[in-house]
Amino acid sequence: MSNIIAVYPGTFDPVTYGHIDLIRRGSGLFSELIVAVAHNLKKNPIFTLNERVEYINNAVDDLENVTVTSFECLLVDFARNAGAKVIIKGLRAVSDFDYELQMALMNRRLADDIEMVFMMPSEEFSFISSSLVKEIAALGGDIKSLAPPAVVEALIDRLYGDKSKK
Amino acid sequence: MSNIIAVYPGTFDPVTYGHIDLIRRGSGLFSELIVAVAHNLKKNPIFTLNERVEYINNAVDDLENVTVTSFECLLVDFARNAGAKVIIKGLRAVSDFDYELQMALMNRRLADDIEMVFMMPSEEFSFISSSLVKEIAALGGDIKSLAPPAVVEALIDRLYGDKSKK
Amino acid sequence: MSNIIAVYPGTFDPVTYGHIDLIRRGSGLFSELIVAVAHNLKKNPIFTLNERVEYINNAVDDLENVTVTSFECLLVDFARNAGAKVIIKGLRAVSDFDYELQMALMNRRLADDIEMVFMMPSEEFSFISSSLVKEIAALGGDIKSLAPPAVVEALIDRLYGDKSKK
Amino acid sequence: MSNIIAVYPGTFDPVTYGHIDLIRRGSGLFSELIVAVAHNLKKNPIFTLNERVEYINNAVDDLENVTVTSFECLLVDFARNAGAKVIIKGLRAVSDFDYELQMALMNRRLADDIEMVFMMPSEEFSFISSSLVKEIAALGGDIKSLAPPAVVEALIDRLYGDKSKK
Amino acid sequence: MSNIIAVYPGTFDPVTYGHIDLIRRGSGLFSELIVAVAHNLKKNPIFTLNERVEYINNAVDDLENVTVTSFECLLVDFARNAGAKVIIKGLRAVSDFDYELQMALMNRRLADDIEMVFMMPSEEFSFISSSLVKEIAALGGDIKSLAPPAVVEALIDRLYGDKSKK
Amino acid sequence: MSNIIAVYPGTFDPVTYGHIDLIRRGSGLFSELIVAVAHNLKKNPIFTLNERVEYINNAVDDLENVTVTSFECLLVDFARNAGAKVIIKGLRAVSDFDYELQMALMNRRLADDIEMVFMMPSEEFSFISSSLVKEIAALGGDIKSLAPPAVVEALIDRLYGDKSKK
Repeated sequence: MSNIIAVYPGTFDPVTYGHIDLIRRGSGLFSELIVAVAHNLKKNPIFTLNERVEYINNAVDDLENVTVTSFECLLVDFARNAGAKVIIKGLRAVSDFDYELQMALMNRRLADDIEMVFMMPSEEFSFISSSLVKEIAALGGDIKSLAPPAVVEALIDRLYGDKSKK
Repeated sequence: MSNIIAVYPGTFDPVTYGHIDLIRRGSGLFSELIVAVAHNLKKNPIFTLNERVEYINNAVDDLENVTVTSFECLLVDFARNAGAKVIIKGLRAVSDFDYELQMALMNRRLADDIEMVFMMPSEEFSFISSSLVKEIAALGGDIKSLAPPAVVEALIDRLYGDKSKK
Repeated sequence: MSNIIAVYPGTFDPVTYGHIDLIRRGSGLFSELIVAVAHNLKKNPIFTLNERVEYINNAVDDLENVTVTSFECLLVDFARNAGAKVIIKGLRAVSDFDYELQMALMNRRLADDIEMVFMMPSEEFSFISSSLVKEIAALGGDIKSLAPPAVVEALIDRLYGDKSKK
Repeated sequence: MSNIIAVYPGTFDPVTYGHIDLIRRGSGLFSELIVAVAHNLKKNPIFTLNERVEYINNAVDDLENVTVTSFECLLVDFARNAGAKVIIKGLRAVSDFDYELQMALMNRRLADDIEMVFMMPSEEFSFISSSLVKEIAALGGDIKSLAPPAVVEALIDRLYGDKSKK
Repeated sequence: MSNIIAVYPGTFDPVTYGHIDLIRRGSGLFSELIVAVAHNLKKNPIFTLNERVEYINNAVDDLENVTVTSFECLLVDFARNAGAKVIIKGLRAVSDFDYELQMALMNRRLADDIEMVFMMPSEEFSFISSSLVKEIAALGGDIKSLAPPAVVEALIDRLYGDKSKK
Repeated sequence: MSNIIAVYPGTFDPVTYGHIDLIRRGSGLFSELIVAVAHNLKKNPIFTLNERVEYINNAVDDLENVTVTSFECLLVDFARNAGAKVIIKGLRAVSDFDYELQMALMNRRLADDIEMVFMMPSEEFSFISSSLVKEIAALGGDIKSLAPPAVVEALIDRLYGDKSKK
C-alpha cells in the first residue's frame, strides 16, 4: 500500500487550470502521478503531442512526484505497463459522470486490477474545459484566468500569429 | 505521501455487499481506511450504532488496514481528528452523483485540506442499497446475495423474529 | 409469443390520467395487462387498497384485456405467480429513469425471466404524479384535468368533506 | 413591459445566503420582486412562518423593490392575485432542474399567463440549501458563511438554547 | 429597472417554432429583446447568416420590441455592447441544462454584470431542435408543424431543389 | 393484440453483444421483430449497409421471428410501412434516455399510432457501444467479449488488414 502509482489521462489540448488543479490534488494522494497525454487523432488537436506534454511539464515542474508522458495504446494497457493501480478522472458535471461511468465499467472489464477514482476540481475551475478555452480565445475573449501563461501565449500565437508577430 | 488515511462514511443500516466491495477497493489504495458509521437519527435506523459497527467488523476482519468506528459530529471534523486526508464515497447512479457533488462542495468549504474521492462498486453490486435490502427482506424476498450472512440473519430475525423463533 | 401477460405496478394513490394513459398504451401491446396496486404502507396512502383498485377499475372498464388487483409480496414474485413475462413502468423524467434503472437491475437479479419495459405517457400527462394531484387539491387547485371524476370527487370529499357535505 | 412583477417562492426554513443572492439578482431584473414564503406543513419547518418572513426582511431591507410575504394557497393563484407575470426559481443541480421542470409544466397548465424563469445563484452559494444549513448546525459546524447572522443566532438558540443561555 | 434589454442568442440554423415560442415569451418579460444569431462556423450551417436573420425577422415582425442581428464576437461582449443586462437561454432537457450551466458559469466569470436567465419553451415544442428539423426534412418527413413556412420552403428547396424546380 | 410487429432500429456499425442481447429480449416479447439498419451517412460508417445487415443476420439466425433489413427513410414511415406498432430502443445511461426521450416525443408527433418501448440490455453489456468497440479495436484492445466473431474478424481486418493477411 505504501507505493501507489496513479495515472491521470487526457487529451490536454491544451492543459487548463482545471487540469492543473486536479494534478495537484492527485499528486497529494498517491506516491507517484503520471499525467498521460493521449494522441486522440479523432479530436483533431491544435497542439502537437509534444507541445501538450511540454505545457503540462512547465506548469507542474514544482511537483516532484509528477511525470508527464504521452501514450498511443489502450489506457489500461498503458497504466498496467507503468505499474499503476489507479486511474484518476475529473468530474465536473453530470454529463461527465455519465460518460465516465461507461468508460469505467469498460476499463474494469478490460483490467480488473486497476481502480478508477474520480476527483473534483476546485469550484472556481469546475466549468473550464479545453474546448471552451479554445472557443473563447478564438472569439477574442481573455483566457488568462483559465490556462497557464505559456498556453495563453501559444493559443493567441496560433490564432492571430501572423498579425501579432508583425 | 506514504501514509494517507482515508475515511469511508455512511449510515450502513445495514451494511451491504456493495459497501463491502467498496471497503475492499478503498483499503487497497490507502494506508489506512476508517469506516465511519454515522448516527443518522433522521433516517430512523433499524439497527443500533453498535450493531452496525459490528456487522461491518465481522465482514472485513481479514483487512488489516481497515478499522470501523462510529461518529456523531460533522464528517469533516471527524476526518480531521482522525488525521485523514481523504473521504471516499461510492457512486452508483446519476442521482448519487448530484447529491454527492453538493456535499463535496460543502465539505471543501468546511475543510479545504480534505479531499473527496469517488469510487465505483463492482457492477454486480451497483444497484444495491441498504434501503432496497430492507424493503426486499420485508416483502419476503431472498437477500442472501445482497448482504453478509450476519446481516441477513439479523434482518430476518428483526422482521419475522417472533414467528421464526418458535 | 402469442400470449404475453404484462404487469403494470404502482401505488396509484390515487390513479391519475397519466397512469390511465399508460394502461391504455400497454393494453394495446400485450395480450393481457394486470394493473397491480401495491400496499405501500411506507408512503402512508390516503386511499385504502380497495378504493385504489376500484378507482382504476372504474376508469378502464372499457378495456377488456385489463384486470386490476392488489399485491403485498415482492413485485417479481407477484408477476411470476400471475404468469407475466413483462413488467411495464412509465418514464417521465430523468429522476424516474435513474430510480427505475436501479429497480430494474435488482428485479433482473431476482427474476431473470421477467422483462422490464419502459413506456412514455402522453406529453400532456408527462408531469402528473399522484403526489402532485394530492398537493394541488389540498391547496384548492382544480384537478379535473389531472384525474378521473371519481378520484376528484373522493379527494375533495376527503379533504373538505365535513364542510361540503353540510 | 415596463412594470413586471415577479414572485420568488420557497419554504425558506431558514433563508440562506444562496436565497439572498437570488433575491438580489431577481430584484435587479424586474420592477418588483415578491418573496413568497410557503407554509409547507409537510416539511415540518423548524421556524414559524412569521419568523421565516422576518429573517428574509432583515436580510434584504436595503432592496426597495422587494417585499416579503407568506401564502397558503396554490402558487399560481398567489402570483395571479399579486399581479405577477413571472415566477423565479433557483437552479443549482440537475436534480433541481428535473423537479422544477415538472412543476413548471404543471404551473403552465394551471396558469398559462405566468412565466417561470430560472436563475443561478452565485457559484460560491450553489451548494447551500436550507436543510444542509440545519444539518451542519445540528452537528456543531460553523454556518456563519452560509446564512445571515440573525438566522445563525436563531438556529443555535433553537438547537443549544438551554445550555448557551445559562 | 424600467428598461431591461435581453439577448437571446443561438445559431438558428434554421429557426424553429420552439425558438419563436421562446422569443415571444422573452419579449413579454423585458423592454427589448435582441435575437442574436451566431456565426458558428464550427457547426457548418446550411443557411447563411443573412438568411438565418431574415427567417427570424419574418417570423416575429409583429413583435415591436424584438430586433434580430448577427454577431461574431464573444456573447458577453456582444451583450455588454448592446447594453443588455440579461441573456436568455431555452431549457428543454437535462443535457441542455448541464451544458448551459457550464456556459453560464463561464459567462459569469467573463461578465459578472450580465445575468443568465433560463426559460422553457411550450411543451408542444419542447423536443424540437434545428438539427432534428433538418434531419426529418432530409428523410422526407413533414416539418410544417416544426418551423415557419419560409424555413420549410427553403429547406425543401435546399434539399430537393433541382428536382422540384423542374 | 395477438400479432404485434416491433422494429428495433440502429446504425449497428458494427453490431455488438449489447445489441444482440436486446434483439433476443425483444424477440421474446413480440410476434415479429424487424431489426432495421439505418444508412446514417452522417456518422460515416466503417461497414457498408450490406455488411452491417449480414453481421446481424449471422448472429441471430437462430431466432425465427427476427428479420434484418435496411432503411433510408424516416423511421416512423419505415415502421408504418412494415405494419409495426412498436419501436424498441435500448436504454443504457441517462444521456441515452435524455436523447431518446426527445426522439420519442418527436416520433409520437409524427406517428401517434406507433408506440416507443424502452428495454435494458443485460448488465454485463450495459456499457458497450459500437463506437467504443471500434475505439478499443483501433488501440489494439481485445474485443472478443464485446462483439460476435465475424465482427471482431472484420474489424481487425479493416484496421490491420494488410499486415495480418501476409
